[in-house]
Amino acid sequence: VKKQARQGKAGKTGKVSQEPLLLGIDLGGTKILSAVVSARGEIISRDRSATPSAGGTEAILRALLDSASSALGQAALKAADLVAIGVGAAGFSDPETGILYTSPHLPRLKDAPLRDVISRETGVETFLINDASAAALGEYLFGAGRKARHFIYVTVSTGIGGGIVINGELYTGATGGAGEIGHMSILHDGPPCSCGGRGCWETLASGTALAREAQRAIESGAPTSILAHAGGELSRVTAREVHAAALRGDALAEELISRTGYYLGVGLANLLNIFNPELVIVGGGLTRLGDRLLTPAIKTAGERAFPRAFRAARFAAAALGGDSGVLGAAAYALQRAGGQPGPG
Amino acid sequence: VKKQARQGKAGKTGKVSQEPLLLGIDLGGTKILSAVVSARGEIISRDRSATPSAGGTEAILRALLDSASSALGQAALKAADLVAIGVGAAGFSDPETGILYTSPHLPRLKDAPLRDVISRETGVETFLINDASAAALGEYLFGAGRKARHFIYVTVSTGIGGGIVINGELYTGATGGAGEIGHMSILHDGPPCSCGGRGCWETLASGTALAREAQRAIESGAPTSILAHAGGELSRVTAREVHAAALRGDALAEELISRTGYYLGVGLANLLNIFNPELVIVGGGLTRLGDRLLTPAIKTAGERAFPRAFRAARFAAAALGGDSGVLGAAAYALQRAGGQPGPG
Repeated sequence: VKKQARQGKAGKTGKVSQEPLLLGIDLGGTKILSAVVSARGEIISRDRSATPSAGGTEAILRALLDSASSALGQAALKAADLVAIGVGAAGFSDPETGILYTSPHLPRLKDAPLRDVISRETGVETFLINDASAAALGEYLFGAGRKARHFIYVTVSTGIGGGIVINGELYTGATGGAGEIGHMSILHDGPPCSCGGRGCWETLASGTALAREAQRAIESGAPTSILAHAGGELSRVTAREVHAAALRGDALAEELISRTGYYLGVGLANLLNIFNPELVIVGGGLTRLGDRLLTPAIKTAGERAFPRAFRAARFAAAALGGDSGVLGAAAYALQRAGGQPGPG
Repeated sequence: VKKQARQGKAGKTGKVSQEPLLLGIDLGGTKILSAVVSARGEIISRDRSATPSAGGTEAILRALLDSASSALGQAALKAADLVAIGVGAAGFSDPETGILYTSPHLPRLKDAPLRDVISRETGVETFLINDASAAALGEYLFGAGRKARHFIYVTVSTGIGGGIVINGELYTGATGGAGEIGHMSILHDGPPCSCGGRGCWETLASGTALAREAQRAIESGAPTSILAHAGGELSRVTAREVHAAALRGDALAEELISRTGYYLGVGLANLLNIFNPELVIVGGGLTRLGDRLLTPAIKTAGERAFPRAFRAARFAAAALGGDSGVLGAAAYALQRAGGQPGPG
């Protein structure tokens, strides 16, 4: 992890930069990432904490504030040095109310007034947005989406999230919930999803889906080395163990990843037909599976989408890795506060 | 069909209106509708012709020009009186090239340079757009979408088409193909679709799908009066005959329509989760089935979409009937020619 001390940067110019400083927070199901960020997308300092596994809204709010303090402390800054704070949170939130209503990956959070609590505790104007929308904005301003007018950002990990950029602007819908592409059903009578739907894209094409299918195949007695990679414990089989087995030529592991790629491609084809985007950015932890996942995904998209929609779209890997969320959340906060983020 | 003579209107004001006049053309799989339209959305004259069932691109181009002449003639106008011509065509076209590349419902048309031929033959600046996008713009400016910022227009007839309005502007994608929501797969291994995909929404929730399922049920010996409504000929069973049977209490017909409504709702839920729109406008011939179709559709959407996305969306019936396409195509042409259409 790259860390840059605030002093180091200030030292180069002989004084503290006049650029607006922001704090971006990325709240996920397992980790909280906070970073002090410049308007140009430089990361000044960074804190990474675990999302508390016990306690409700209170515990998570406390962890968010602690993480923010830590990032500020590392940069030798106070909250008063910030122009704004942006929070990107997994789940269904509304930028206008600042409330995180529900979060499939943070079920203990419900109707949590993240924006107002953080704003009150820090004294800094705060804005709340969906985490994948934040990441899309980060990629648009500083990553793989630079100069694209219309693009879809797809992040594939335990679930599937998305962000939509249209005419160079993040599209968040009527109440901030746009981009829940992972909950597009591609199998109307398929597996039940945590959202209440069935056969949602993420029930078939996510890391969770891959692990579930691997566990099923092992239980049904399919010959494979996947279980050995998980120390012989079925419940410890995740996408990572399937990948490890595939890297050593395990045929079932190869087949399962390819099948996940096929499902990924079905959803991509839908998005190409709906949005006719010029660019599709694919990120998230599951893309570590690389070409084993992405080659069948893009092949399937090409077979199923309108040929002209497929040809119009470029596919690119997310360029900012785990930082897209904090960079995008910070940029969103600056935009909402009236400033203009960008690489300068 | 309402017809208004140009002279009648001019007579009222004592002189010919100074408002910009446009010609809108709506090219569908079975009919061509042309209308002289004012910038404020008044229809001055109208021609309705059948799409030629024989011949290729040439025959269709000739029919388009004949229909345009007829509409102009009825209004006692010449092409030179028009500011611009807008063509809304079923299929995959690109406003930038003016070419209709492919059309599932007009398979004889391929790479047809509609814009340039019509422009050359009439001497009037011409613009080409997808028919459902045109209808969405028509509903936005003059119909059920007035004052909505973000909405999705869904038209359900032999297929399913769509138009997307975001921030008060028609969104047509990178190459004019956005809005092909009918080709979003909701059953990845479902029935093959004319587009090359499988289980596309329109293979399950369109009038064609309803007719196919009715024919299958009849063939398998299900007790029903549907066949009697089609004069005993299986191949003449369409959505209309299923509807006629349902109106007389035929249980199978009721069940088939309700099932089509369920599929319609699955796709609507997907669109709610993806776009979080404030409004969904549903139009097209199949909506004549009324509540039998729409009640299960909206119920299913409510069960499957994120509750907040469902609650944020209002559902409205298209308000312009068969005129949305010509009104929208004309308005699109005026916008592209630098003018500003609207109800004034």
